[in-house]
Order: sequence, then structure tokens, then C-alpha cells
Amino acid sequence: MTITEHITETFGPSYRAVAVGKIMTVAKDRPLQLDCGTEIDNFPVAFQTYGELNDMASNAVLVCHGLTADQYVASTHPVTGKPGWWDYLIGPGKPLDTNRFFVVCSNVIGGCMGSMGPKTINPATGKEYGLDFPVLTIADMVRAQALLLESLGIERLACVIGGSMGGMIALQFASLYPQRTRAVVAAATSARQSAQNIAFNEIGRQAIMVDSQWNHGRYYETRSFPAKGLAVARMAAHMTYLSERGLQSKFGRDLQDRDEITFGFEADFQVESYLRHQGSSFVERFEPNSYFYITRALDYFDLAAQYEGRLSRAFAGCGNIRFLLLSFSTDWLYPTSESMKLVKALNAVGAPVSFTEIQSNRGHDAFLLEIPEYVACLKGFFNSL
Amino acid sequence: MTITEHITETFGPSYRAVAVGKIMTVAKDRPLQLDCGTEIDNFPVAFQTYGELNDMASNAVLVCHGLTADQYVASTHPVTGKPGWWDYLIGPGKPLDTNRFFVVCSNVIGGCMGSMGPKTINPATGKEYGLDFPVLTIADMVRAQALLLESLGIERLACVIGGSMGGMIALQFASLYPQRTRAVVAAATSARQSAQNIAFNEIGRQAIMVDSQWNHGRYYETRSFPAKGLAVARMAAHMTYLSERGLQSKFGRDLQDRDEITFGFEADFQVESYLRHQGSSFVERFEPNSYFYITRALDYFDLAAQYEGRLSRAFAGCGNIRFLLLSFSTDWLYPTSESMKLVKALNAVGAPVSFTEIQSNRGHDAFLLEIPEYVACLKGFFNSL
Repeated sequence: MTITEHITETFGPSYRAVAVGKIMTVAKDRPLQLDCGTEIDNFPVAFQTYGELNDMASNAVLVCHGLTADQYVASTHPVTGKPGWWDYLIGPGKPLDTNRFFVVCSNVIGGCMGSMGPKTINPATGKEYGLDFPVLTIADMVRAQALLLESLGIERLACVIGGSMGGMIALQFASLYPQRTRAVVAAATSARQSAQNIAFNEIGRQAIMVDSQWNHGRYYETRSFPAKGLAVARMAAHMTYLSERGLQSKFGRDLQDRDEITFGFEADFQVESYLRHQGSSFVERFEPNSYFYITRALDYFDLAAQYEGRLSRAFAGCGNIRFLLLSFSTDWLYPTSESMKLVKALNAVGAPVSFTEIQSNRGHDAFLLEIPEYVACLKGFFNSL
Repeated sequence: MTITEHITETFGPSYRAVAVGKIMTVAKDRPLQLDCGTEIDNFPVAFQTYGELNDMASNAVLVCHGLTADQYVASTHPVTGKPGWWDYLIGPGKPLDTNRFFVVCSNVIGGCMGSMGPKTINPATGKEYGLDFPVLTIADMVRAQALLLESLGIERLACVIGGSMGGMIALQFASLYPQRTRAVVAAATSARQSAQNIAFNEIGRQAIMVDSQWNHGRYYETRSFPAKGLAVARMAAHMTYLSERGLQSKFGRDLQDRDEITFGFEADFQVESYLRHQGSSFVERFEPNSYFYITRALDYFDLAAQYEGRLSRAFAGCGNIRFLLLSFSTDWLYPTSESMKLVKALNAVGAPVSFTEIQSNRGHDAFLLEIPEYVACLKGFFNSL
């Protein structure tokens, strides 16, 4: 059964159109109350699916993306033309085998790839929300994804998986809806955003605000775009995704297309050229306002704080969920010590939890990379489900 | 003998005025050739002195400042009104005892506190140099300081000391002029700027360039000032001066003057408020163009590369100089491993070298702080000179 067929069968033919368009309008009958107090309803969630949902609707895996990724986890990206960000992981015969599993990946709300976010038209004004969009939390993103799953007729997932912010979403999902998943995979993540990470997010937002095209987030109306500021935000964030060792081995002090330093401010060094490229390519596919909202949701993330500071309480209902936690040896954004705290809390509730630190010099970015030991861990876990 | 008396005796009464003004015009008779090939002459070097030079002119200590510091090492800063950046270290009865030593600290060329730099008037145009100022190296800064010492009648130092970029200057001084110092203290530094550090410098420069008031460095003429961009540059750099552990223990996720998050983009978190303050206070005392020039000098710093990649050759003439190297346990800008490389190279030339890693959770910033173990190391070393 294809997803369209499944939806049509479950909800009737009127759902066909939205499903084919891979955008589902959720919160149709009951508005979703966000953590900030605002209610939203009839809002779009954009998603991609891979494989087929079985008759029991028991083989669904929800994949959760990181800060600036999107639902194109295993499809060619419509803007960049690049393969999906976990393309090596998801597909027929791949570690997350779509011959067996039905994979759903949705763009978080607050994002800019089709789900409701700051560039959605505000019905009250007829213009884009901009910074009038309500400030979201990771839990709000999870609630929206849960509505999508309901709309797709999926009551319980085989697994929810994510890395970085996606790992937070997966953990928050298990915490909010422990009956709705049988397994959780969380890679390169943490139960809370650290002071250092909040600081880097703030630097990114400040860099965007420096740009005279920012216009307090109303750049849609002035037909401007704070590309330079957004590029600098990306450059600063990108540094936190890498490791000193990785940078040194990849670039060191090597020069870019020249034999000598030029005594100027052009990109003499390969690392400068690389960083400029990271900034300039990012602005082609991302929204400055979404950068504000998603980084803020990260800042606000503190799973223990939702339960009076006791992380184990966040997982009170999760004793029967299987967890796989993975960290990376040179990840300083969400270091191994953060995963260890999660392992402790999960042990406290008696959840079956596997944990591995993967050796890599690729820093936080490693969670996106096809590292044999990492892929083997994931494959083994999925095979055992 | 006061410094003014000494200069007057050595060079005649015409030097009195400049010495009292703590600005010395150097390269009077022979122009200084910079590494980029440009020659500069009759240029000002601003400096401060503490204590008195003895009759043999043998008790002088040259203190070298970091990226954004200046000559006000042990004096109230004329702009901020704050105590000198190593005030606890330098003075009568202090570890670097000015009852015994004559301390000189000069603003690097390229700086913005009186030494020749991008806001100096270019005689060819009658306007500030801006980005027409020649791109400098750490070695150029050292050569200018050597000219200052010559002008002050100091042929050989008792010690040259610096931390961070100041440590690079101290090491470069010993390498270029091994006969001109008897000791070197280099704290929290490295023999070369890493790829990661070059990247962070580039982010800072890019942030300044985002600011519409930047005007390609000709902001003097447009009476503008890229304060927002410079503040973001400082914020990004400041992160590299701290440690995750220090940030977590100082701020954690504590909120700023509020009990609850506000679901907005104001500085909810103390760490955001702190970072904004670091940015906004920095722009009151520093020049965006100087930020370009000094970060570029850091990028270009690679002591081994000056000697065909062999760091020990950089210290070929330094076998009789006493070295003290200090690193800090949570410094990830210039980590302990960088000091270890220096120790190896100095051992290879038979130089007497002491090395200690100081335990601290204050990251790179620790080299500026009054940490008892650190101060004891420095005091012991100075006492033994």
C-alpha cells in the first residue's frame, strides 16, 4: 500500500491531494497550544516518506532533522540538487531499509521548507509573520510531528531517530509520548543546550541583525535579504560542527590556489575559502527568520527543567522503549559527556539503553557522515527491531 | 634615573618631549622594511614604562600585549578607566617588581592606541590609511619594538614576556634577536596560528564587513563606524577565550533578571547578556581596521615556516636564553599541545626551558587572571633572573 493509498483508505479521498503534495494540514479540529501560550491551527507540515506503511501501521520510523536540515533526508534537495542528508542510511537495502520500514521525515515547524514558519502568511495581516511568529520550543515541534503521524494513521512508531537537534526531538518525543514509539536513536545530542551553545546561537542571530537588509525580520516586505549576515551566522555555527583536529588535518595552514601569502585580506588560506563557501552556499537554501526561531527553540531546550530538574523523570514512562545513544569523540558541541548524562537517566528508569562513542576527527558533523563503525551500530539496531 | 633623564642623557634633550608623551618616533635614520616589502619610516610607537632603567640598562623587561590589549599594562586605561590588564603582576613589590625591573610595554604597530596603524594619516593622501595600510606580520611588530628599545638605549633585555599574541611576539623577538634578551616568558601561546584560529579571525573580519557602516575601511571619511559588526567579531572571538566548563559553571542556563523564559529574542540567558556586553564595551575602545590588521598578522604567524618548517631552527641562537612556557588546561585557542611543541624545539637547541600547565577552567582568558599557581610561577622566574 502506498502512503497515498493508506491515507485515502484511512481518511477518505479528500486527503489525497495534500498527501501527494507531501504537505499535510494538521490541527484541523483542535488547535495546538504552543508552550508560549499561543494556539495555532490548520497549519501545514511538509514531509517526505520512503517505503510503504504496512497494514498494521507498525513499521513507521520518524526521522528528525537538525537545525538547518529538512525533510529531504533521502531525496535530492529541490534547491541545492544535492543528495539527501542521510542518503547513505535510508533506502532499499540500506541500514534503515525501506523494504522493511516506512520512513517519515518532516520539516520542523519554524522551518522554511514548507512547514508553518515565519515566512508563512499571517491570516491576520495578509503578510508573512516574520518575527510576529510565535517563539517555539522543541516540544512544540514534537507536538506538530505527532499530529502529522496521527494524520498518517500511525499510532505507534517502530523508532524515532535523529541527530543533533533531531536527537533532542527524538528524546522529547519519547518523553512526551512514551506509548507512541518502541525505540529511540539519538546521535550527537544532549538533554539540554549548554551556555556555550546558547552563546554561539546568539552570535548567529546578532550577525544577521548587523545586516542592513535585515529590517527587523520584515525583509520580505522590503524585498531585501540579509544574506551577508546569515552567511556569517552560518560560518560561526559551522566552526562548532568541526573539530580542531579535523580542521588541522583537512586544511592546516595550506594556502588556496597560491604559493605565497598575499599580504592582503583575500582568502589566502584554504580554511578561509572553505568557510566563505559554507556561508555563501547556506544562504541559498535557508531563511534568516527560521534561523532565529530554530536556534531559539534549541536555546530553550532543557529536558530536565520540564520535570523539576530531574532528567530521569523526563523518561518516567520510557522503561519499555529501547534506546541507542551515539556520541562522537571530537564533538565539542554535544560532547560524549552529554550522552553519558542521558544514559544515566535512562538507566535510572530501567530502559534498555545501548551507548557507543564513535571515534572520529570530524567533530559534530560526524553524525551526518558515513563512518563504518557508526553505520554498523545503526544497522545492527534497526535489524534488531 | 627616570626614563626621561635616561633618554635625555643618551640622546640629548630633543628626545625629552616624545618620551614624556610616551610616544617615540622610530626608524628616523633608516626605514624599516616590512615583510610585505613596503618601507616605513619616522613612525610613532606608543608605550608605557614602569620603574627605572638602571645605569647598565640591564634591568629592562619588555611586555608584549595580546590581540586587542595595549600598552596600558599596569596603568589605568585612558578610555575605559579600568586598571591595567596585568595590573596584579607589575608594580612595586609585585611579581614583576618595578623596584627592581624597568618595564616597557608598547602598543603594536597596526594597533590603535598611538602606534602607527590604519588610522594614522597617510602622508601621500592626507587621509587615514584605512586598508591602504601595509599588511603586517608579527615579525614586523617585533622589529618596531626593537627600534623602540634601541631608542630607549636598551641593548639587551632582562626578559621579554607576553601571553597569547604577546607570547608569539616574545618568541619571535628571541628568534630574530637572540642576543637582545636573557629570558623569555610565553604564556598561552603557540608557534603558529592553527586552521581553527584562522577561521575564527576570518569570521570576525567578515562580521565587520557585513556592517553597512564599514565602507571598505574608509569609515573615517563617511564619519560612520561599524560598531555592530565589530561587536559581533568580538563576541565570536570572545567565545574562543573561554571554556565550556567555565561558561557552564559561571552561567549555565541561568536567566538574566527574570524567572521565566520570555519566548522572545531578548537576552533571556545570562550568557547572552554577558556576550552582548562584551561586544558593546569592546567597540568603545577598539578600531575595526586595527582588528583586520592584527588578526591578519596572527593568521600569518608560523615561526617554523620562517625556517623551512623546522621550529628548532627558529631558536638556533637561543641556547643561552632562559625560557618559561605556561599553558592553561582548558585553553582551546592555544592548547597545551602547542606549548609542548615549543618545549621540544627549545630542548633541541639546548635552551634552559621550564614548562608548566596551569589548572584552570577559565580557558584562554586564564593568562590574564590572577591565578595563584600561575602568579607563583611567574614570580619565581622573575626572582631568579
